Amino acid sequence: MSENSLHRLFHPRGIAVYGASADSKKIGGRPVDFIKKSGYDGPIYPINPNYPEIQGLKAYPKVTAVAGPVDLVIVAVPAAGVVAALEDCAAKGVGGAVVLSSGFAEAGGDGVEWQRQITALTRRTGMRVVGPNCMGIINVKRGILGTFTPSAEGSGLKPGRISLVSQSGAFGGFCLALMRQQGLGLNLWITTGNQSDVDFADCVRYYAEDDETGVIVGYIEGITDKEKLISALEFARQKGKPVVVMKVGSSEAGAAAAASHTASLAGADQVYDGLFRQYGVYRAHSIDEFFDVAYACATAQSLPASDRLGIVTVSGGVGVLMADIACKLGLDVAAMPEKAQKQLKEVLPFAGTRNPVDMTAQLVNDLSLFEKNFDVLLEQGNYDAVVAFLSSVGLVKELNAQLAEQLRKVLKKFPGRLIIMSMLASQEVRRMYESEGVLVVEEPTRAVRAVAALRFFAREAARIKTLTPPPALPAGVKPIPAGALNETQAKEILASAGIPVTREVLARDEEAAVRAAQDIGFPVVLKIASPDIQHKSDIGGVRVNLADAAQVRDGYRTMMERVRKAAPQAKLDGVVVAQMVKGGVETILGVNRDPVFGPVVMFGIGGVFVEAFKDVAFRVAPFGVEEARAMINEVKGRVMLTGLRGQPPADEEALAQAIAKLSVFAAAHADAIETIDVNPFVVLPKGQGAVALDALIIRKP
Amino acid sequence: MSENSLHRLFHPRGIAVYGASADSKKIGGRPVDFIKKSGYDGPIYPINPNYPEIQGLKAYPKVTAVAGPVDLVIVAVPAAGVVAALEDCAAKGVGGAVVLSSGFAEAGGDGVEWQRQITALTRRTGMRVVGPNCMGIINVKRGILGTFTPSAEGSGLKPGRISLVSQSGAFGGFCLALMRQQGLGLNLWITTGNQSDVDFADCVRYYAEDDETGVIVGYIEGITDKEKLISALEFARQKGKPVVVMKVGSSEAGAAAAASHTASLAGADQVYDGLFRQYGVYRAHSIDEFFDVAYACATAQSLPASDRLGIVTVSGGVGVLMADIACKLGLDVAAMPEKAQKQLKEVLPFAGTRNPVDMTAQLVNDLSLFEKNFDVLLEQGNYDAVVAFLSSVGLVKELNAQLAEQLRKVLKKFPGRLIIMSMLASQEVRRMYESEGVLVVEEPTRAVRAVAALRFFAREAARIKTLTPPPALPAGVKPIPAGALNETQAKEILASAGIPVTREVLARDEEAAVRAAQDIGFPVVLKIASPDIQHKSDIGGVRVNLADAAQVRDGYRTMMERVRKAAPQAKLDGVVVAQMVKGGVETILGVNRDPVFGPVVMFGIGGVFVEAFKDVAFRVAPFGVEEARAMINEVKGRVMLTGLRGQPPADEEALAQAIAKLSVFAAAHADAIETIDVNPFVVLPKGQGAVALDALIIRKP
Repeated sequence: MSENSLHRLFHPRGIAVYGASADSKKIGGRPVDFIKKSGYDGPIYPINPNYPEIQGLKAYPKVTAVAGPVDLVIVAVPAAGVVAALEDCAAKGVGGAVVLSSGFAEAGGDGVEWQRQITALTRRTGMRVVGPNCMGIINVKRGILGTFTPSAEGSGLKPGRISLVSQSGAFGGFCLALMRQQGLGLNLWITTGNQSDVDFADCVRYYAEDDETGVIVGYIEGITDKEKLISALEFARQKGKPVVVMKVGSSEAGAAAAASHTASLAGADQVYDGLFRQYGVYRAHSIDEFFDVAYACATAQSLPASDRLGIVTVSGGVGVLMADIACKLGLDVAAMPEKAQKQLKEVLPFAGTRNPVDMTAQLVNDLSLFEKNFDVLLEQGNYDAVVAFLSSVGLVKELNAQLAEQLRKVLKKFPGRLIIMSMLASQEVRRMYESEGVLVVEEPTRAVRAVAALRFFAREAARIKTLTPPPALPAGVKPIPAGALNETQAKEILASAGIPVTREVLARDEEAAVRAAQDIGFPVVLKIASPDIQHKSDIGGVRVNLADAAQVRDGYRTMMERVRKAAPQAKLDGVVVAQMVKGGVETILGVNRDPVFGPVVMFGIGGVFVEAFKDVAFRVAPFGVEEARAMINEVKGRVMLTGLRGQPPADEEALAQAIAKLSVFAAAHADAIETIDVNPFVVLPKGQGAVALDALIIRKP
Repeated sequence: MSENSLHRLFHPRGIAVYGASADSKKIGGRPVDFIKKSGYDGPIYPINPNYPEIQGLKAYPKVTAVAGPVDLVIVAVPAAGVVAALEDCAAKGVGGAVVLSSGFAEAGGDGVEWQRQITALTRRTGMRVVGPNCMGIINVKRGILGTFTPSAEGSGLKPGRISLVSQSGAFGGFCLALMRQQGLGLNLWITTGNQSDVDFADCVRYYAEDDETGVIVGYIEGITDKEKLISALEFARQKGKPVVVMKVGSSEAGAAAAASHTASLAGADQVYDGLFRQYGVYRAHSIDEFFDVAYACATAQSLPASDRLGIVTVSGGVGVLMADIACKLGLDVAAMPEKAQKQLKEVLPFAGTRNPVDMTAQLVNDLSLFEKNFDVLLEQGNYDAVVAFLSSVGLVKELNAQLAEQLRKVLKKFPGRLIIMSMLASQEVRRMYESEGVLVVEEPTRAVRAVAALRFFAREAARIKTLTPPPALPAGVKPIPAGALNETQAKEILASAGIPVTREVLARDEEAAVRAAQDIGFPVVLKIASPDIQHKSDIGGVRVNLADAAQVRDGYRTMMERVRKAAPQAKLDGVVVAQMVKGGVETILGVNRDPVFGPVVMFGIGGVFVEAFKDVAFRVAPFGVEEARAMINEVKGRVMLTGLRGQPPADEEALAQAIAKLSVFAAAHADAIETIDVNPFVVLPKGQGAVALDALIIRKP
């Protein structure tokens, strides 16, 4: 446990409340009231110089007046008094303070300076500060309700293995209410507010360290410290802690709203998408999904070892529906072996036995069918996960006690298998199954989605073992010169970084062009060389497939004529004579500079995929070849590389190598690069490599 | 109301139960018990020759022994006795019978014959029969619980405007339990079982006629009578009744499961998709979605007039999340006018005012903010729908009474606007809003989806006014000859049906080919003419861009040589000399024969779209030009027609005309056609038309 961690805030020996109020409905009164009633086993110290006693507790003028140890201080005084209160806290040597007060950076004016002072104080003293302008922190098991959200009132929070961090207090409060309503178990909860010190990444790291946390769920609006976030996500992954996030602002209207709503620079949403894939983070797109996945991670005792899904149902139709969704989500609804089907048919004369297995309403007449079914499914069908749809059976307690007992035996025989019951069920019945490690998800398609989410984490756990470090930057990689770069310079630099480019020569006149072509070998391509022209083909600056010296001469003259006419101001360096590449699949590699994440590598298949469908994958540089393979697999256009219409499959290995090397180059030159555009990057048939036909590097201004 | 409708079953003057049992848990005892307790205002007649009295009611040996009118008979006797019971019913002149008993077609053996006899009886007598092997019928308002599903026990069903028809009894039962749990209002409910007489389409038609039904929701496994279904869906659309369906079996595993689960020929799932689009049916893909849309249709007092969506929130982040989803679903989260934003800022100094409008937690301190906000949003923002996210505010009754009252005033000022409250809410609070015509959908992304679903129906209501009838089949359309058709014959036939094809001539020798080419004009294409060769280009049977007589001669010879070598058995009729079409966008038109829906027209963009992404649209033939336009708009590849990369936009009008004409031709020759493949069908730049370069017609064997 690192010294600077949030441990003392979540496990305080004593809690003080600055600005404590006698009115239990006020912001300074609520935390005192909540903590008093929630079973916290340490002392609570109201801090308020105007009263000797608050809510029946002895009050103190300052935290330094308290004799015993204080690890957590809740601060609810007006903004102008917060810094002074925090100085007291630092003097007392408390572990950390949670500032509920608002009126800081979000309000402008003096608040901006006060917030700067808070940050300075934390840097100086090492004391951690959560907030200001936040909704507080909670540790359910310890009874620490350091918050004023009405959603914590009367607690009713069930202890569990989900720990939540939210950049939004309102969202965090909503989550609390929802978890109470659905009976979801909560461990730790924190809202980070203005993040003067403790930020999202700190909380992810702490939750990853915390043994009682089974799954980390986070709500993100925007990140400012890339390295800290990546390091925290990487740490959580190494610890095997699943991370589920909700990140808003993917649409244009959403992003505009987010910008007006939060001060943090958000970074491009698709870069977040890439980052989440890169670090094995599950991104949810609805609140239902957010909590379904969190619940599944927190409750399942292991992750399913394969995609094989068995479906059991009392309604054939719902079985088919679940099979449909499962296929869509990439699960394998493999058929039961013939022999096993025969065996089931002996037990259930009219039921479907292929998978889904339809027990029909017979189940209710003969509960023993259930265990028999599962035995055959798990032993002979060898499914690693089974979803059983039982309609409204979960509303009848007695029946379920028997079924849960059967499943206990089943899981003893087949440890490590995942079982989800999908049915309308009372809270009591849910608890009965959950205590056996069986999940209950009412809606059958959501039950199947939960399996798919657990498989996501299982695949990530396997993938992380295959991840290779970023390749080394070759010795002698060329520096990026000042000023505008022409195509030849760009290609020379990329070639020195290990990215294959076409052989080419800059020719300053017609004769030189002919000699170059003879040297490279016909046919060749001519391209105008000018730092001022970016879209060469639009103005006649590209001629392809020139087969002999005469065609090169003619090409040179025509091109010069046209380009001079179209771009009279452009400085012309001559023409680039390049090797003509035939065949292969055109792809696009690129690097953009994201305001938060720095150089970001982009990959897509050329043509309509990128232009019309925005079918591209992003990753934050640098990364290794395996991650590059994941990018290739991610785009829909990948199908073009597999050998459509009798074409040979393309050299994906060479492509992956080039993408990874580009990422390393981009990261090493993060300070100099605005964008890199390698388009087209042609991937030749397997074994023949890949080659950049054109490249553009734009320096950072 | 048609004479044969289901009216007497749902509004009986008297109900008899064949096989009535004294045991209220038995299949023949439950309906008696349920109806006795559910407030039905007519007489119940238990039919059982062995008892004078059952469950306190006078019992009769036969329904013919009953003196008063009987409109509905529930039949729960063993399968062997069902036909006799139904003969009694017919003799008594009852309106219809609902056969709960199983042991018919689904069980095989004698049951198949008994079911045939039931069907024959209904045809002979005109008496309607629901089932056998079904779960019964319900009319909530009349207290008719003609079912044995435990989900109806103790009723607790809330009367409402949703009427449900399910081909699966188990699914129907689950829906009942779920509607009770969620407090959704139900009107009529029917499960159709083996559909010996009354089928899915009959129920849709009846529900469309029924004034108390606001939305028709249906669960489909497979349809056998295409015309009846289409006519019912068309009727419902004309009546303005939204239809929401769940149709399972879209995946391969799902379809295999469906086939083993139901005897009905399902037809291809994507054809259902096309049919639903064609008739304005909303297809749900999860049970949550199924009921969310049903609820929205049943509760909303009108459909939103535009895509403009206003978002109000107490959590900026959730506002952004809703904006993201709204954009994905095609809604317009338009910004508020600057002036209105200023006005809001005067009321709410720190809130987002662009749209989403963030009221922050301030709302709870000053409830009047709510109405002020809505006034500005609806008047100046002019949104036709507003979703307001209020976190967990819906759990506090008093607050909501005030808010609901405010919304009542708002809706009075702005009638026809749609308002959805998204928050955790008690049933009581939900009812409060619903009685004002305001919807409550807890999960904010599902609330936005509900708006999108209502817009789907609004757009359909507008679209139906633009629908044109199928174009007339041209006079003199050529007949489809017996035997295999070559390309030239196929094109001649399609041309006669009004589908433009390339000019071309069948040449039986080299000289004829040259003459034909000179006649058509160079350049030309040569294609081998043989009824035995379908994939011509694979064996060297196509030569393009032949520019003069010499090239035609050479092309002819080379082709003959290659084809004879590759397909020595094939009968060669000569070569087709065809006009060479340059430019344009390659599309694919096709006709397949679906086992249920007959000729089905397929459209897609040529190349990777169809081959790798299965990006195609289907419709059941015949249909008009407007429907063809909808097909074009449906495929993702449509972007290729819009003029990418500086290409001119394509002649979509000519394309739509051709698709509609193909549908008319296919429908007129449904008996003769197995498949038609028009590939490529080249769409030229706008104003220049479109033309089939190749065509294949395969006769039905």
